[in-house]
Amino acid sequence: MMSASCVDYSCMPQEKASNPALIYVGPTDAPAIQEAVRSAGAWPVDSFAGAEAAIWTGGDISELTASLHGGISWLQLPSAGIEKYVAAGLVNGRHVTTSAGPAYAGMVAEHALALMLSCARRLHSLSRQRSWSDPEIGRLYGSTVAIVGCGRIGKALMSLLEPFDVDVFASTRTGRTVEGAIDTVTPDRHAEIIALADFVVVAAPATPDTERTIGRAEFRVMRPQSFLINISRGSLVDTDALVDAVQTRSISGAAIDVTDPEPLPAGHPLWQLDEVLITPHCANPDVWNAILLPPLVQENVARYLKKKPLLGRVQPQRGY
Amino acid sequence: MMSASCVDYSCMPQEKASNPALIYVGPTDAPAIQEAVRSAGAWPVDSFAGAEAAIWTGGDISELTASLHGGISWLQLPSAGIEKYVAAGLVNGRHVTTSAGPAYAGMVAEHALALMLSCARRLHSLSRQRSWSDPEIGRLYGSTVAIVGCGRIGKALMSLLEPFDVDVFASTRTGRTVEGAIDTVTPDRHAEIIALADFVVVAAPATPDTERTIGRAEFRVMRPQSFLINISRGSLVDTDALVDAVQTRSISGAAIDVTDPEPLPAGHPLWQLDEVLITPHCANPDVWNAILLPPLVQENVARYLKKKPLLGRVQPQRGY
Repeated sequence: MMSASCVDYSCMPQEKASNPALIYVGPTDAPAIQEAVRSAGAWPVDSFAGAEAAIWTGGDISELTASLHGGISWLQLPSAGIEKYVAAGLVNGRHVTTSAGPAYAGMVAEHALALMLSCARRLHSLSRQRSWSDPEIGRLYGSTVAIVGCGRIGKALMSLLEPFDVDVFASTRTGRTVEGAIDTVTPDRHAEIIALADFVVVAAPATPDTERTIGRAEFRVMRPQSFLINISRGSLVDTDALVDAVQTRSISGAAIDVTDPEPLPAGHPLWQLDEVLITPHCANPDVWNAILLPPLVQENVARYLKKKPLLGRVQPQRGY
Repeated sequence: MMSASCVDYSCMPQEKASNPALIYVGPTDAPAIQEAVRSAGAWPVDSFAGAEAAIWTGGDISELTASLHGGISWLQLPSAGIEKYVAAGLVNGRHVTTSAGPAYAGMVAEHALALMLSCARRLHSLSRQRSWSDPEIGRLYGSTVAIVGCGRIGKALMSLLEPFDVDVFASTRTGRTVEGAIDTVTPDRHAEIIALADFVVVAAPATPDTERTIGRAEFRVMRPQSFLINISRGSLVDTDALVDAVQTRSISGAAIDVTDPEPLPAGHPLWQLDEVLITPHCANPDVWNAILLPPLVQENVARYLKKKPLLGRVQPQRGY
């Protein structure tokens, strides 16, 4: 027998523990996710047969729909926005569903802050100039921020805003107080917080209820010096109303990572506006998601095995 | 006699206290500065004759040189960078000189963060596109930042970076440890910290010693994925070397608020580089300085009257 001090675990073949939970990982090849499942103490398999949970890595949703069976008690989705899975009927009471939201919130919040600072400092407008100028510059410090739909991303943004001494007003579906916000309101009171803000940040999930949350009425109450930031989904903002609001200087500008339609076609009036920055849905790019998702999967598999609450759990009746 | 509760101070005429210190404020009309001087307990005057201190609001330096007399024991300058006053011999042992640096550091640090995020998220490159794309996006979170000349602005930037879990390496003239930095080095060891960094932030004052702190040798050791940020003075960076470094992809890009020459002439190669953002020396624009300077003046006048150390004191032998 070897003494304990001589055991080199790195040389031992990775073996299947006795009766581990089998968890489907697929349909794409995802070694980092497989490794995360193993590290948490379960066993990744490439077939739904015999699996009790599934980590879906993205692909043809109809394939997922066809493969799910009654033995699957948990489905982990690969994205933060899950409206297409909801539409396909995959978020239901038959299994627990979790989104990848917790993995990506910080990445998206950083993008939101970048967009806010680009507006305040007029960076996108200055980027398009090819000669010296004398621009009017604002600042983020000390400003008022309305976060429409202040969930995971909104709270991550609030952490980044901490050193800026901003006043945050939040809205949530239930109106439950967001810690650190001056006030939290329900969606029917959006106009009140939007009217106060220098920055209106749209961070609510895309559901039938949140479609065109920001439309003509909202732009009308926004301050002339204010900016609209959208890092959620294009469907939350009425695009034509946004074009009009910027063109008529009803607001100062906008920086958006998502559009409606998306991708925004070349030649669309939004591309022509000097005070608008469009980033092509890259707040949480795939290359980063591949790095950020495995730690969430590992944590959720560990929680699943211990029957503890999973992170990113979706409420079927809310759709997010 | 009125009872204390009836005294309405807002209605009382502002009167000169008995024998207050006379402080010159000028040459431009600056009511907010005058008010700051008054609030601190001194009396603003528009002539150097009889004044024991001077708040210079900007203008023809030869006029200042001609007006200073032996009775002036403190000169408050209106800018953070004071190299032109040093060149005019106005920073000397005959009076205490203070810069406006403490008033503007936060404003400049916010601009530096905006420039860093614009680089990480490729906002200036995306600003120039007029159609959808699939860009490679990085992030600031978790990166390594070298702050070259980590004084007031550098420390203010570190406060803003706090939520981003970055590793900061700093350099200072003396190498005295900057709190919160992983390591602090003297200027002769710049190459070591520059070679580690994803972001090299130039924040040192302009002095004869700091000219071209970042030149060909420094760009050679910078990482291919790194970005150069300059919010100090154009003289600290070798412009031709910067153009070459970006063109040859020796670094990923740059975002600079200051240039050499400045203003940068139209048609200069720097204006043509997609991975370069130039903001026209607007990190702390005059309109904001007019708001930010009076509180510093009030604080410094109060300190002056109590013979306490002034904020922003310049060391004549260092020139900043």
